Amino acid sequence: MKVRVAVVGGTGYAGFELVALLQQHPKVELIAITSQSYAGQCIDEVFPALRGVSSLVCEPLDLESLVTRADCMFVALPHKTAMEVVAPLVRAGKRVVDLSADFRFRDAAVYEQWYQEHTAKDLLAEAVYGLPELHRDKIRSARLVGNPGCYPTGVILAAAPLLAAEVLDSDSLIADCKSGVSGAGRTPTLATHFCETNEGFKAYKVGEHRHTPEIEQELSSLAGRAIKLVFTPHLVPMSRGILTTLYANLSGRVNDEEIEGFYQKAYGNAPFVRVLNPGQLPSTLHVRGTNYCDIGWRLEPRTGRIIAISAIDNLTRGASGQAICNMNLMFGFDEDEGLKLRVWQP
Amino acid sequence: MKVRVAVVGGTGYAGFELVALLQQHPKVELIAITSQSYAGQCIDEVFPALRGVSSLVCEPLDLESLVTRADCMFVALPHKTAMEVVAPLVRAGKRVVDLSADFRFRDAAVYEQWYQEHTAKDLLAEAVYGLPELHRDKIRSARLVGNPGCYPTGVILAAAPLLAAEVLDSDSLIADCKSGVSGAGRTPTLATHFCETNEGFKAYKVGEHRHTPEIEQELSSLAGRAIKLVFTPHLVPMSRGILTTLYANLSGRVNDEEIEGFYQKAYGNAPFVRVLNPGQLPSTLHVRGTNYCDIGWRLEPRTGRIIAISAIDNLTRGASGQAICNMNLMFGFDEDEGLKLRVWQP
Amino acid sequence: MKVRVAVVGGTGYAGFELVALLQQHPKVELIAITSQSYAGQCIDEVFPALRGVSSLVCEPLDLESLVTRADCMFVALPHKTAMEVVAPLVRAGKRVVDLSADFRFRDAAVYEQWYQEHTAKDLLAEAVYGLPELHRDKIRSARLVGNPGCYPTGVILAAAPLLAAEVLDSDSLIADCKSGVSGAGRTPTLATHFCETNEGFKAYKVGEHRHTPEIEQELSSLAGRAIKLVFTPHLVPMSRGILTTLYANLSGRVNDEEIEGFYQKAYGNAPFVRVLNPGQLPSTLHVRGTNYCDIGWRLEPRTGRIIAISAIDNLTRGASGQAICNMNLMFGFDEDEGLKLRVWQP
Amino acid sequence: MKVRVAVVGGTGYAGFELVALLQQHPKVELIAITSQSYAGQCIDEVFPALRGVSSLVCEPLDLESLVTRADCMFVALPHKTAMEVVAPLVRAGKRVVDLSADFRFRDAAVYEQWYQEHTAKDLLAEAVYGLPELHRDKIRSARLVGNPGCYPTGVILAAAPLLAAEVLDSDSLIADCKSGVSGAGRTPTLATHFCETNEGFKAYKVGEHRHTPEIEQELSSLAGRAIKLVFTPHLVPMSRGILTTLYANLSGRVNDEEIEGFYQKAYGNAPFVRVLNPGQLPSTLHVRGTNYCDIGWRLEPRTGRIIAISAIDNLTRGASGQAICNMNLMFGFDEDEGLKLRVWQP
Repeated sequence: MKVRVAVVGGTGYAGFELVALLQQHPKVELIAITSQSYAGQCIDEVFPALRGVSSLVCEPLDLESLVTRADCMFVALPHKTAMEVVAPLVRAGKRVVDLSADFRFRDAAVYEQWYQEHTAKDLLAEAVYGLPELHRDKIRSARLVGNPGCYPTGVILAAAPLLAAEVLDSDSLIADCKSGVSGAGRTPTLATHFCETNEGFKAYKVGEHRHTPEIEQELSSLAGRAIKLVFTPHLVPMSRGILTTLYANLSGRVNDEEIEGFYQKAYGNAPFVRVLNPGQLPSTLHVRGTNYCDIGWRLEPRTGRIIAISAIDNLTRGASGQAICNMNLMFGFDEDEGLKLRVWQP
Repeated sequence: MKVRVAVVGGTGYAGFELVALLQQHPKVELIAITSQSYAGQCIDEVFPALRGVSSLVCEPLDLESLVTRADCMFVALPHKTAMEVVAPLVRAGKRVVDLSADFRFRDAAVYEQWYQEHTAKDLLAEAVYGLPELHRDKIRSARLVGNPGCYPTGVILAAAPLLAAEVLDSDSLIADCKSGVSGAGRTPTLATHFCETNEGFKAYKVGEHRHTPEIEQELSSLAGRAIKLVFTPHLVPMSRGILTTLYANLSGRVNDEEIEGFYQKAYGNAPFVRVLNPGQLPSTLHVRGTNYCDIGWRLEPRTGRIIAISAIDNLTRGASGQAICNMNLMFGFDEDEGLKLRVWQP
Repeated sequence: MKVRVAVVGGTGYAGFELVALLQQHPKVELIAITSQSYAGQCIDEVFPALRGVSSLVCEPLDLESLVTRADCMFVALPHKTAMEVVAPLVRAGKRVVDLSADFRFRDAAVYEQWYQEHTAKDLLAEAVYGLPELHRDKIRSARLVGNPGCYPTGVILAAAPLLAAEVLDSDSLIADCKSGVSGAGRTPTLATHFCETNEGFKAYKVGEHRHTPEIEQELSSLAGRAIKLVFTPHLVPMSRGILTTLYANLSGRVNDEEIEGFYQKAYGNAPFVRVLNPGQLPSTLHVRGTNYCDIGWRLEPRTGRIIAISAIDNLTRGASGQAICNMNLMFGFDEDEGLKLRVWQP
Repeated sequence: MKVRVAVVGGTGYAGFELVALLQQHPKVELIAITSQSYAGQCIDEVFPALRGVSSLVCEPLDLESLVTRADCMFVALPHKTAMEVVAPLVRAGKRVVDLSADFRFRDAAVYEQWYQEHTAKDLLAEAVYGLPELHRDKIRSARLVGNPGCYPTGVILAAAPLLAAEVLDSDSLIADCKSGVSGAGRTPTLATHFCETNEGFKAYKVGEHRHTPEIEQELSSLAGRAIKLVFTPHLVPMSRGILTTLYANLSGRVNDEEIEGFYQKAYGNAPFVRVLNPGQLPSTLHVRGTNYCDIGWRLEPRTGRIIAISAIDNLTRGASGQAICNMNLMFGFDEDEGLKLRVWQP
């Protein structure tokens, strides 16, 4: 008996990725895709790559109808809009994975400071932050998962084992992150125009990107104290991938074997983190289209610092693949069910 | 009981693609990868994307050992080297899919004119040209399949139904083809240097590319008369994909519905050809990483010509995916077994 | 005494290119840039590359003011809008180079068939098609130049000497053209989104692109008979450049030396055409940022055809550089004044 | 009377850039290009972009001949090889700009620790580090200039005014740098293969890149105390450009106006540094092909840090443009003579 699944807001890049992956998931039946802009059009007109793969017709959002047809909803709407849809679905007894920021924060005040008013605060207490490596057990029993942002996924996975091991000066964290253009969404803007991006590399929203408090929430929780980090996003002339270069001052002496041990302890059993051997460094090229997070590091005794580097695919691990992973946990499937994705090079 | 498979010459891009795909094929056990250059190294050192996916160690080529361990061999060696390996494997009773040009030609003289001396001519008579849409039945019973070149796959699939329908002036064919850089192989050269390719678009080997006689063999066979075509390859600053723009003079009046009918008749049951609706045109973006060939066309009454356009992924449909498709047919599996690959956009 | 020049519609890519080039032209003073969308903003806010290069503030279009301040106008507006501006400027005695399609056609009926109603038909008779290699003398005395389209520039330069030499079957011309994304303009659309373009190669507007009649006008005039050609534009994942691959049936025997002779005769004294040696082929990489058109060819005796290939930078030679070249001729300057542009590789 | 100039080692990317720029320099006559690999070939065969621009034939290196023909030499050889050529040229009374690392270090021990034995130590005392904004006066009278590395140029220009103003904790510097692929040179390697670079973003040589001591030398000299910084280079899938994201702890309170003041004081008269307005951030897109260094910053009171960001073209400002700038100073020309280069976008 397959889980009946709907994708609400299926015509952005995360939505496409959900459809493409769910279509091949052995335990799932994709029964509906909703879209305001493309209602009435076949999904393969929106995304020609789906020709012959899915012939679902985008439907306008009708919550009453959806709840009778699906057991699980992936909500891929902009924040604010998302919470208005998620709340009634959860209250109707459905399992929901929300890909917006609306249910990622435990503290409504933080959300409201960085985003806007929250109109479903009561659900924040039960919503689980959907990073499986950190919250696997809670996700299993969750009704509502707030699926992590793309940047936070890469930063938190690189930092968590080191913070847990208490080898960092937790005031010293700097995350220099680089993302492919698909992170900016499918809506055409000057910033995503080929000619303004190609051969251009730049930082943006320095010191003000809204993924900052999300990262800080999880790292503070791990460290047991309030952590403030510097987070600097950059735009790379490529379609997919995020590389995170994380800098921290070491609080004492530590060697490569110990660092490897911390990562292995944290991720040794995780199907989707690949801890590299000492000396190896990750590349976005090697995780494309997969749910893997590759992590490497370099100790720098000269300056007393560690540089930890992670690579993910921003659309798969940073959005839709992780969302499906969360659904797998919520429904008791194997964590990697439907996500043993083919690797790519090139 | 799975088919035991070996990849001979597994460390080029076609070899990587074979390993990545075979690793996920439900009816296959990949038992060996051979490589002269990387013997003794784990395949995931050669291709870091394979970390956690395959831990096979590249082995030097030892035919005697291989034939005891595998039922089916994919040979991904340069031509000339390939024939020296393929012949003993076939004679040892193994099924072989050869990705080189060595067993694509029915007429040894043509091979020798464009390549070099052929030392296993006796096998040419039984070798089958591995384009499933044209030779499905013969492939099923073949011991040896000559897997098509990347350009020929795109050109032949676009042209075949029109030639079969006898609506073209068969002296007028021009194939203007554009390939991503992976078609040039993994060995570093100035021509594949990022800085010499990026923002550079050019034609190469005009009038002398060795895929010419391969295309002509198949098209002539279909037309029942000797066809000579103009074939012009170009290099596109992208990693994967081939777009073929095929020009031909129409021999009479024909309309879109008739053209659609010819393509549907030829490919209506083929799992890996997507015939687009009239008015739609294919893009390499929409077939990336898949075994699909997308085909569209435009009639141009002003000039009495048809422009037929096909898109494939040169590494999947143009090499390794098609090779696995051929293996599927040879072993009685579904044509698309292990090849229901996730689509991509972007 | 410098020529006082204004750029009308200076905030698209052609406008930027005009500003960047005119700013360095030794015989020109750039006195105004007009822009509807950016009026009141400094041009370096629109194009940050211009910081420190130009501090002109975009002004709303005021023809009465402009004619008192400038001697020569470059009009880089969309067609239709262009003609409404060009006509009064010419009537006010100004020299005008119009970069739209509005004054490229000698026959208003052709324009009206492919575009829309023409409201300044009287100027068509005197407007000169601004391809210097074909119409150098007429341009010198022109009041109004219709600056060629980007594709036509590449196609006509490749074809003209062969047509003039009467060695082609003029019914057999096929121009398979490939353009970088800047040809689609700066306005963001899904088609110019980085993620929809990168790793995507496709044809578009097959059989219906409006540059077709423009090419046919010039080639017909050269051949002395009506020529219809097939013209197929493609989009390349790169920012700049057009490569044209031109196919034609030879009407008789001809050899490389003769072909070279035809091109040398046509372009031997032209500062901006580089006729390659037999065997060499052009690449867009080698003409980037310059006004050069590189031309190579390959005779194919097997099929009785010639393949002539040209490469240009679509923004420089295909728009603004050529426009300045036309201005140079109109004002009696050297053809390459201000256009001895630095070459690039990479 | 023009300065007679030779380029020694003219067939890498820096050499090409030198030739392309010197060819247009109004006060220079380029009299020779030497190349070991391409001796006897015309430079336009090596770099087809130079067709019609330069017809110099690459000559084998013959110091005795060179010193009779040229007044000034640009040496673009690999380090170690460079010093063996530079020393005799300087001793012969020639002005030399060396683009290798061989004459960038004041302390031979540092050079020998990171590179290898130095065989011309006596020249280190007089060699001037060729960053005009820091050492303009010394460069004017230098016989030998050690032209800065590409990464050091971007890092030092961003950091220098802040260190001079003593507003940073000088132990806290982290330079996260991102370079286009041309920085890796023209020799084909797997790392510069299009397919291994495209869609791949990665760090490399973390903690061990040889530009580290070069940056530390200049920053320590400015700060008046030994500075150790973390320097992390990354490879961006683009041809040209370096973006530097520099992190430092502020040693006290400071506001945007003060920071702007420090940069304006340092660079207000420098023709090749563009200090952006508060709130603006640089992009490699906006400096392509120019000698500009664009600098922006963001104060982050939340964490007490400043993030300073610079963008340069690695081949122009990071190598050949800067080398010519140094020559200009050495010969009493304007600093920007021959370097008022056209800006690009896109």
